[in-house]
Amino acid sequence: MAYVDIVTVLAVLQFILFGFHVGRARGRFGVKAPATTGNEIFERFFRIQQNTLELLVGFIPGIYLFGRYFSPLWAAALGVIYLVGRQIYAAAYVLDPGKRSLGYGLSFLPVAVLLIGGLIGAVWHLIHG
Amino acid sequence: MAYVDIVTVLAVLQFILFGFHVGRARGRFGVKAPATTGNEIFERFFRIQQNTLELLVGFIPGIYLFGRYFSPLWAAALGVIYLVGRQIYAAAYVLDPGKRSLGYGLSFLPVAVLLIGGLIGAVWHLIHG
Amino acid sequence: MAYVDIVTVLAVLQFILFGFHVGRARGRFGVKAPATTGNEIFERFFRIQQNTLELLVGFIPGIYLFGRYFSPLWAAALGVIYLVGRQIYAAAYVLDPGKRSLGYGLSFLPVAVLLIGGLIGAVWHLIHG
Repeated sequence: MAYVDIVTVLAVLQFILFGFHVGRARGRFGVKAPATTGNEIFERFFRIQQNTLELLVGFIPGIYLFGRYFSPLWAAALGVIYLVGRQIYAAAYVLDPGKRSLGYGLSFLPVAVLLIGGLIGAVWHLIHG
Repeated sequence: MAYVDIVTVLAVLQFILFGFHVGRARGRFGVKAPATTGNEIFERFFRIQQNTLELLVGFIPGIYLFGRYFSPLWAAALGVIYLVGRQIYAAAYVLDPGKRSLGYGLSFLPVAVLLIGGLIGAVWHLIHG
Repeated sequence: MAYVDIVTVLAVLQFILFGFHVGRARGRFGVKAPATTGNEIFERFFRIQQNTLELLVGFIPGIYLFGRYFSPLWAAALGVIYLVGRQIYAAAYVLDPGKRSLGYGLSFLPVAVLLIGGLIGAVWHLIHG
């Protein structure tokens, strides 16, 4: 499971990086805490971080379940696709929120496969011992 | 633990479903990203998703700890109550935010029992080996 | 790992407590759901909770990976620093958002150490078996 552990930490570090971008955008665009609105570009950085949080909370259990019931290596590979997809998502969203679909799909799909795979694996294990 | 795995994936899929409702509400009520305000009904869907995220981050460690220290079957049963409670919460909130208490309680309580149970189990394990 | 389990539950309970403060602030400052803006003090309580959620999603995998690859006791000790740091963060933020840096650093740093430590441990395990 070391592969899965590595990709999981990378996904969290990527999320933390997106959080740093939010902090930097606070200063750059003059959005003082606790506000999270008031500047369109700041709001893009903020939504990138928040949307990544929403995916991460499914990604983490998904990658471990898929890794346990199927293959740690395939789970990690799907995790790498997620990481790349999130980078594309972030880069596109910040330039134009209307162009976020490709990166979103490329990072959402691996999460869906990891979760559905984990679900099938768990049901299979329950039936066939 | 296969029961716990299944209920965990179902809880994440339910959260993803709430996220789809937010995306659909963006189009229906004309709330363009990165905005998350501007339409009351959109904001209800958004808060349902966000509040579920807040519970899920406690639900997942809670169900695994309760499952390990007490019983996977009881952990999964509490998880099913959580799932039903969240559906009631979402259905009520979207119609009238003032009526969200029942569903909230019904989904918060299992999370509290899972976490407190897990805490008691861990302390017990530490003392009695 | 019982030490790690205990600190993990305490971190989630602390987050739930911050959530209760948000709920109480809704009533006290008249911010009706689904709104999350409109009163500066409410927004501070809300941002404390949200920022804690953002850290918690890295804290939980971090503490378990550090505990597995290095030492459960050291992982739990870093977790206690996180807990104290978050309390300082919350207490300072609510009085003056400009003074949140110390508590933020004191709770972010343990999370960074747990995650980087977990990453190093996993890479080491992969190379040296």
